[in-house]
Amino acid sequence: MYGQDRIYKKVEVIGVSKDGIEAAIQAAVSKAHKTLDKLSWFEVGDIRGHVAEDGKVTEYQVVLKVAFQLKD
Amino acid sequence: MYGQDRIYKKVEVIGVSKDGIEAAIQAAVSKAHKTLDKLSWFEVGDIRGHVAEDGKVTEYQVVLKVAFQLKD
Amino acid sequence: MYGQDRIYKKVEVIGVSKDGIEAAIQAAVSKAHKTLDKLSWFEVGDIRGHVAEDGKVTEYQVVLKVAFQLKD
Amino acid sequence: MYGQDRIYKKVEVIGVSKDGIEAAIQAAVSKAHKTLDKLSWFEVGDIRGHVAEDGKVTEYQVVLKVAFQLKD
Amino acid sequence: MYGQDRIYKKVEVIGVSKDGIEAAIQAAVSKAHKTLDKLSWFEVGDIRGHVAEDGKVTEYQVVLKVAFQLKD
Amino acid sequence: MYGQDRIYKKVEVIGVSKDGIEAAIQAAVSKAHKTLDKLSWFEVGDIRGHVAEDGKVTEYQVVLKVAFQLKD
Amino acid sequence: MYGQDRIYKKVEVIGVSKDGIEAAIQAAVSKAHKTLDKLSWFEVGDIRGHVAEDGKVTEYQVVLKVAFQLKD
Amino acid sequence: MYGQDRIYKKVEVIGVSKDGIEAAIQAAVSKAHKTLDKLSWFEVGDIRGHVAEDGKVTEYQVVLKVAFQLKD
Amino acid sequence: MYGQDRIYKKVEVIGVSKDGIEAAIQAAVSKAHKTLDKLSWFEVGDIRGHVAEDGKVTEYQVVLKVAFQLKD
Amino acid sequence: MYGQDRIYKKVEVIGVSKDGIEAAIQAAVSKAHKTLDKLSWFEVGDIRGHVAEDGKVTEYQVVLKVAFQLKD
Amino acid sequence: MYGQDRIYKKVEVIGVSKDGIEAAIQAAVSKAHKTLDKLSWFEVGDIRGHVAEDGKVTEYQVVLKVAFQLKD
Amino acid sequence: MYGQDRIYKKVEVIGVSKDGIEAAIQAAVSKAHKTLDKLSWFEVGDIRGHVAEDGKVTEYQVVLKVAFQLKD
Repeated sequence: MYGQDRIYKKVEVIGVSKDGIEAAIQAAVSKAHKTLDKLSWFEVGDIRGHVAEDGKVTEYQVVLKVAFQLKD
Repeated sequence: MYGQDRIYKKVEVIGVSKDGIEAAIQAAVSKAHKTLDKLSWFEVGDIRGHVAEDGKVTEYQVVLKVAFQLKD
Repeated sequence: MYGQDRIYKKVEVIGVSKDGIEAAIQAAVSKAHKTLDKLSWFEVGDIRGHVAEDGKVTEYQVVLKVAFQLKD
Repeated sequence: MYGQDRIYKKVEVIGVSKDGIEAAIQAAVSKAHKTLDKLSWFEVGDIRGHVAEDGKVTEYQVVLKVAFQLKD
Repeated sequence: MYGQDRIYKKVEVIGVSKDGIEAAIQAAVSKAHKTLDKLSWFEVGDIRGHVAEDGKVTEYQVVLKVAFQLKD
Repeated sequence: MYGQDRIYKKVEVIGVSKDGIEAAIQAAVSKAHKTLDKLSWFEVGDIRGHVAEDGKVTEYQVVLKVAFQLKD
Repeated sequence: MYGQDRIYKKVEVIGVSKDGIEAAIQAAVSKAHKTLDKLSWFEVGDIRGHVAEDGKVTEYQVVLKVAFQLKD
Repeated sequence: MYGQDRIYKKVEVIGVSKDGIEAAIQAAVSKAHKTLDKLSWFEVGDIRGHVAEDGKVTEYQVVLKVAFQLKD
Repeated sequence: MYGQDRIYKKVEVIGVSKDGIEAAIQAAVSKAHKTLDKLSWFEVGDIRGHVAEDGKVTEYQVVLKVAFQLKD
Repeated sequence: MYGQDRIYKKVEVIGVSKDGIEAAIQAAVSKAHKTLDKLSWFEVGDIRGHVAEDGKVTEYQVVLKVAFQLKD
Repeated sequence: MYGQDRIYKKVEVIGVSKDGIEAAIQAAVSKAHKTLDKLSWFEVGDIRGHVAEDGKVTEYQVVLKVAFQLKD
Repeated sequence: MYGQDRIYKKVEVIGVSKDGIEAAIQAAVSKAHKTLDKLSWFEVGDIRGHVAEDGKVTEYQVVLKVAFQLKD
């Protein structure tokens, strides 16, 4: 595909999962893939999370940019 | 809501108001809330403004990211 | 237009062209102008590119934010 | 005081107020002044906020660093 | 004016006011407008402030860049 | 809780674990939760690690900020 | 010249040209060279531009710092 | 070893693995350890990844700097 | 010590000395070591200073983060 | 190639050319391609340049990272 | 002086000295103090230097911003 | 040399010395000059250090990039 003029769009999403960072990424990617467009790649931004009353990390929140090609 | 898998989207907008920084934020939030989706929170990026011929600040331009939950 | 409340939206796109940085910018701007909305300005982010087997730069990839006014 | 060896400590706090950015700053400064130590200055970091169901900004959250001198 | 070759200069100033962030911006803009040149716009950098003995914010210090066109 | 004036404090800690990034985060969160205060959330900063003589990653070091509400 | 005490000053300017990024740089450098002082080098900051009604990039705006030696 | 003059070199590599972030780190560290030199530590930079046609994350790409001591 | 789970805390301080940058660092480290806890390392942030009426640098102000291990 | 474990190395180079930014990029890429290894892509960092006595930009200096795959 | 409206200007200079970082700072501060205006403080930006043929650091180049109050 | 096409390479090293920041820089520069190539200049990145049991700074660790010209 290299050498052909084309254009991609990047959208910023936040995936949330109690199962870890990769799970939060996959959750966001799956959802964006269905809702927005077929994704090509992602880039992780901030990683944050919530802590429960007992000191357990109950969820990971991963801010990521997902990218897809704009069709003609 | 913590502990449930979910996904948010962030969109970058610029609010403009002659009445100050909070007014510019509220203007952008109100408009995005109506046009894009029901917002949950915002994050301020750059703050800029325009200066008139007489040296008065005639408007504040606030770049912000607004976030909302993507529904199933 | 200064002094009137209004709101802009910024979208992140990546333009790709074998002809140089300005060509990649113009490609992305033209496409976004047609697909998304009438643009007012752009801001260049990262500049990257692909290198062919023979060491030639075969394409420039320019990440940019394009901005347009949200109408009522 | 310039010219004398001394040391300051900086602490990161988040002030929250429904009344605007300066109010959130003052809330954080007042509280930190009482709880931590007598402050000398502050530096604003991120500015964020919460949006209600009806699209109104219901609170401003200002991340700031507050600084105070460590006594002997 | 778009489409004509021209050049702007940016100068970094710090406005100080006890009345809030917008007041500090306006103070710096007014002064720079008189002393340096007729300004076109400003961009806010850091926001800091001084805290009095009683925990009150006694002044806001806003670092901003002001821009003006260089005439021939 | 939104809409009520309140203040949070953020503290920077480094969690270390041989079991991966999430384990290092949980280790730091658990410890800070006991030693400092009941945490509400965390934000990941740098991720680093140590490499053993045989080229195995023997520990992950995650710099994070943990946040908790300052009570009256 | 290396090894001699000396001092340079850097000034931030914005060059604008419809002919591309290098043209905008050269425009700013030429103007600053005449108006401010004999320049030694430049450093590119942001690259932005304006888009016309028909989706054409009508001008490139390049923010750059230009540097020159302060004479005794 | 503290207190002795010495020098380290840092090299930037990208590890790729379908099995997660830690796996990508370990892959890069193992390879660099063999090819370049015996590593002492690593620092994670960007985290990116590729998305397949069906919306699955098929690989994680972790940019990291690896460091090793330069021997006499 | 590598391979054992443990946690460090980082605290931001500002050391001030008329004798130079290293002196300001040592001043801050000595003070923090006594007041806060036994430090393991430091990381320099901003370096600033005050200038007297006659143009002499009368003090160096070094912002640094100091780190120490949290004991059980 | 996606889905296979592999590792890339990034090297920072500075290309210099009197003919513009793309020429400086191509110069650096060609040279690095011959001297270091077969490159896959590049990422532009800083763009700087030298100004002659008569105010002409006599060369563009482009800092870029070039990347290539490490073979087994 | 706190509590009074006032305005400062910041100017970016580069001090060069063969005698070390503090000497380069003092050189820049002294020169700027005479040429530009009476300075109040400085902030260090980049620190660079030149290396001679024999591997000796022959000069330190310190980029700093110097600040002074604009009088009425 | 200005005006001639050429290419430089930058390498990241960490110099360590108990004698201060300039000594750590010189140590790294001397070593890199011998081991890697004849250096032209250096750029300081992070400055860190180790603290002994008694609160004394026992070594300075300076991360720097060193640059040298790639010969044909």
